[in-house]
Amino acid sequence: MRNRNEARKEAEALVSRMTTEEKASQLKYNAPAIPRLGIPAYNWWNEVLHGVARAGTATVFPQAIGLAAIFDEEMHEEIATVIAEEARAKYNGQSAHGDRDIYKGLTVWSPNINIFRDPRWGRGHETYGEDPYLTSRLGVRFIRGLQGDGKYLKTAACAKHFAVHSGPEALRHSFDARADRKDLFETYLPAFEAAVKEGEVESVMGAYNRVNGEPACGSKTLLKDILRDQWGFRGHVVSDCWAIRDFHVNHHVTGTAPESAALAIHNGCDLNCGNTYLHMMQAVQEGLVSEEEITRACVRLMTTRILLGLFDENCAYNAIPVTATDTDAHADLAQRAAEKSMVLLKNDGVLPLDPEKIRTIAVIGPNADSIPALEGNYNGTSSRYVTFLEGIRACARAHGIRVLYSLGCHLFKDRTSNLAQADDRLAEAAMYAEAADVTVACVGLDAGLEGEEGDTGNEFFSGDKKDLLIPESQRKLLAVLRERAKKLVTVTAAGSSLNVGVGDAEIFAWYPGQAGGTALARILFGEVSPGGKLPLTFYRDVSDLPPFEDYSMKNRTYRYFEGVPLYPFGYGLSYTAFAVPDASAEEGRVKVTVKNTGERAGDAVV
Amino acid sequence: MRNRNEARKEAEALVSRMTTEEKASQLKYNAPAIPRLGIPAYNWWNEVLHGVARAGTATVFPQAIGLAAIFDEEMHEEIATVIAEEARAKYNGQSAHGDRDIYKGLTVWSPNINIFRDPRWGRGHETYGEDPYLTSRLGVRFIRGLQGDGKYLKTAACAKHFAVHSGPEALRHSFDARADRKDLFETYLPAFEAAVKEGEVESVMGAYNRVNGEPACGSKTLLKDILRDQWGFRGHVVSDCWAIRDFHVNHHVTGTAPESAALAIHNGCDLNCGNTYLHMMQAVQEGLVSEEEITRACVRLMTTRILLGLFDENCAYNAIPVTATDTDAHADLAQRAAEKSMVLLKNDGVLPLDPEKIRTIAVIGPNADSIPALEGNYNGTSSRYVTFLEGIRACARAHGIRVLYSLGCHLFKDRTSNLAQADDRLAEAAMYAEAADVTVACVGLDAGLEGEEGDTGNEFFSGDKKDLLIPESQRKLLAVLRERAKKLVTVTAAGSSLNVGVGDAEIFAWYPGQAGGTALARILFGEVSPGGKLPLTFYRDVSDLPPFEDYSMKNRTYRYFEGVPLYPFGYGLSYTAFAVPDASAEEGRVKVTVKNTGERAGDAVV
Repeated sequence: MRNRNEARKEAEALVSRMTTEEKASQLKYNAPAIPRLGIPAYNWWNEVLHGVARAGTATVFPQAIGLAAIFDEEMHEEIATVIAEEARAKYNGQSAHGDRDIYKGLTVWSPNINIFRDPRWGRGHETYGEDPYLTSRLGVRFIRGLQGDGKYLKTAACAKHFAVHSGPEALRHSFDARADRKDLFETYLPAFEAAVKEGEVESVMGAYNRVNGEPACGSKTLLKDILRDQWGFRGHVVSDCWAIRDFHVNHHVTGTAPESAALAIHNGCDLNCGNTYLHMMQAVQEGLVSEEEITRACVRLMTTRILLGLFDENCAYNAIPVTATDTDAHADLAQRAAEKSMVLLKNDGVLPLDPEKIRTIAVIGPNADSIPALEGNYNGTSSRYVTFLEGIRACARAHGIRVLYSLGCHLFKDRTSNLAQADDRLAEAAMYAEAADVTVACVGLDAGLEGEEGDTGNEFFSGDKKDLLIPESQRKLLAVLRERAKKLVTVTAAGSSLNVGVGDAEIFAWYPGQAGGTALARILFGEVSPGGKLPLTFYRDVSDLPPFEDYSMKNRTYRYFEGVPLYPFGYGLSYTAFAVPDASAEEGRVKVTVKNTGERAGDAVV
Repeated sequence: MRNRNEARKEAEALVSRMTTEEKASQLKYNAPAIPRLGIPAYNWWNEVLHGVARAGTATVFPQAIGLAAIFDEEMHEEIATVIAEEARAKYNGQSAHGDRDIYKGLTVWSPNINIFRDPRWGRGHETYGEDPYLTSRLGVRFIRGLQGDGKYLKTAACAKHFAVHSGPEALRHSFDARADRKDLFETYLPAFEAAVKEGEVESVMGAYNRVNGEPACGSKTLLKDILRDQWGFRGHVVSDCWAIRDFHVNHHVTGTAPESAALAIHNGCDLNCGNTYLHMMQAVQEGLVSEEEITRACVRLMTTRILLGLFDENCAYNAIPVTATDTDAHADLAQRAAEKSMVLLKNDGVLPLDPEKIRTIAVIGPNADSIPALEGNYNGTSSRYVTFLEGIRACARAHGIRVLYSLGCHLFKDRTSNLAQADDRLAEAAMYAEAADVTVACVGLDAGLEGEEGDTGNEFFSGDKKDLLIPESQRKLLAVLRERAKKLVTVTAAGSSLNVGVGDAEIFAWYPGQAGGTALARILFGEVSPGGKLPLTFYRDVSDLPPFEDYSMKNRTYRYFEGVPLYPFGYGLSYTAFAVPDASAEEGRVKVTVKNTGERAGDAVV
């Protein structure tokens, strides 16, 4: 590993040759070139939450919450290693063609290690769930995989969103999250501390919200006292996008853009995703910011670029070819991860399906042939999507089983065509369910229904969920299928606690990535046993919980919840334990123990 | 075949028991039930242009223009026979579940036998091209396949849009298409005459536009003098949807809704798609419409319902099971049709690909992994879509060939992400083209770019095309690929004359339906030879043509075009003729002759 002190000295030397204006110009996410110093333009914004995202073709692994359900640190780091490989391959190819734009750099704003505090939060599926310990372990390994152990950083990871950030999405630009010291240090901060101390994460992103009154991206408590002074963080801090603008526009803790820029940089926010630092020189002129502060931020940023080997033509990672993205081996890993991530919530004996006894299988529902149901959010584009329907068809074909498909209903609207009456696919769903030996209902959400504030397509829930139910259109569909199907298996694609509960067997598939359909089919037909465990508590109803805006952990998550959960943290059935309940049951238990060794998460599995 | 005169007498007896109000109520597309007479509700609106459309899962065959490119009447009728089978299967299942709504009946508003007069027309891909003779032959056989030869009509076909209808879409509700007698009887009407006289089509749909001053759905010349008096049509006439409203709102040939209803029914428009006939009783009260006219229309409509066997519980078609939709056999037919429809426009020897000489193939472009590029418009939903990328990957995998995929560009926007700079996928496209032995560029349009007035998604061309080019984003992509690719094959999904012209080989794939990717891959790898011939002239530029609004046939279509076409009507290469130019060339010529026997279209192939 490159020595940080040496890199820092190089950075200091480089920055010492810049004018104040040049230094200030480098503190924005879309940093311009400084040709006279040989510094090319660099766009700091990239995303790799579960695969290289938003930059074209890449292997799409299960969404982060699904990766957490694997409860396997080794596989987690392996996946991050592959992601970094693909990011380098794409960086090499794209920068060779002069494309150094957004989503094409090596500073990757992942992982999201916020605690999934409340099941309504639309971005909860970006996280590793509700447990600080599991989140810490997976965060550290993901960071290690991304950053590698070479001379240079393979990519520069970023732990976000620091801190105490978990909705509501609609309020995030003006919200003040109140957390007491116990919750801060026992729930909200441990994963960040581990990321800094154990993971040596190169970057930390501040959150949109205020924390106990201070805006996170300009918080002395968070960024100076805790992050740098207590934890010894030596990388750079980046703001969430347009979060510094929120200081004066939404939080009203400052009055002007220069004041916001000054507050942020003064407390150690080095890089601005957004445009507020365009006012940095004005802040200098108004006496709000010193040149030393600008120099300090710029040195930190140049240190990261040097640690990435961006100024070394002989950086070993430059040799990674463009063909190292989307390989067969990466696709295999994505499939194995999907298989291990899916959680078997219920099984009345219908699973695994016996192909000898099935002539016809009905695959029904708005998520059956849906690519968004595989992708989650902050995703790349796969060249090999296998939808649930496609995966089941491939397995069924091998067994000579007929497949009948119906959309069943719109994902959330009451009809699929404006000209039709409501429930215009229910008859088709019913007639196919009746004609089949077994019906697989593919329901749930996608990132249009649980997602980020401002996501296009969030027409139903506006980012956050309002309850723990699937949309009414799908509840009506399931009621019809429950009545008509001989045997009913529900497969739910979603990233959060939902109460579906009508199948003879129920699989919670998360957003399983490009190989979701293959993984599901192999589980349904018993080629593999479902391996996932819930990394979060499944509640019966939001009425069992405190208000969404309440950041106290009281009566939340398996550690503090006082009610009866629908399914507890760590829950997940397997075929082994249920199919052979005597001798192999022990074997099944051994496997679980191995998987969760050293994890508090393991203790929670009953 | 059921005797029409008998059916008509039954209908007369049934209608004689109705009140005037009840008769009038039956003249709307969403006819209500008359329980006291045992008449259930019936929605007349259904679509089956290239497969049962808009009613859930069905086999999706190539779009109509692609079916025309097969130049094979036998296969055309076979496809229509399958479509009718699926329509019956769905009708049986859905009506058994009480769903008798739109798109679920047996009166199917297909085929579209308008003449593709001008390449700018957005709906041209719904037609069989520019030749009255080919359109007549295919129209007749499609109608025969849909209507069957049983005791009852299997479905009731509908020849549309009568007549002289081919854009502009933006003006269709107020446009007056002027055509002289020669063009009327030699170009615009022959396919309708054949449909009526040879096809015995049960229904004819009037067009939106006026024809020589008369609105088509209320035209004495078209509906009385020609259709009924000259041709002896005995079925029913339906208006295009909300076309009768256009009489007073847009054409201004009447002043009020009752006057419009009166004009339409007076000239023999029996069924109103729309709501204007809600004013029928008012028209009676105003003395504009006689009860006899209402009775006449109602008898015609009830005759159709009787001919369909809708009042006979023992109708043989009632036994068709719901599983008769989307069968493997139907899927095979869809694949064979797609293979025969694709047209090889150019081949510098790169095709068929030699798998022994290829290690890596790049598949690039906005239509490479696009389902809309397979579907066209007026389509059903397949349970087995194989995109171009998926089809190529399956073939490539069998040969151990690596596939590299890039979207390359947005279908028509200048970037794929609002946050990115323009051309944000060109670098990826370039780097994969460089890394590959051969690049397959999948470009073209979809029904969002060439489609119907009012289609959602028509944001670029608003239904019609403005020129004969693919969007600028794709032209930029092809320029990059032309520069970077070792060998370049272009595959264009579209339904109209386009000038792409940069590939070493060029395939025009139309909108090839659910099996488009499999068909394309089999052609690329030489498992089958491309069989399609152009059913329309490909022009170099719109400047070679008269104005879009000019309905004179002068200087249009292969029959009257005075310029030099890009590719002539009937054009299409094959591997046989070019790969083995001596002995097998004759064999190749023999095949062509067999295919086109008895078709003027065949004569045009040079």
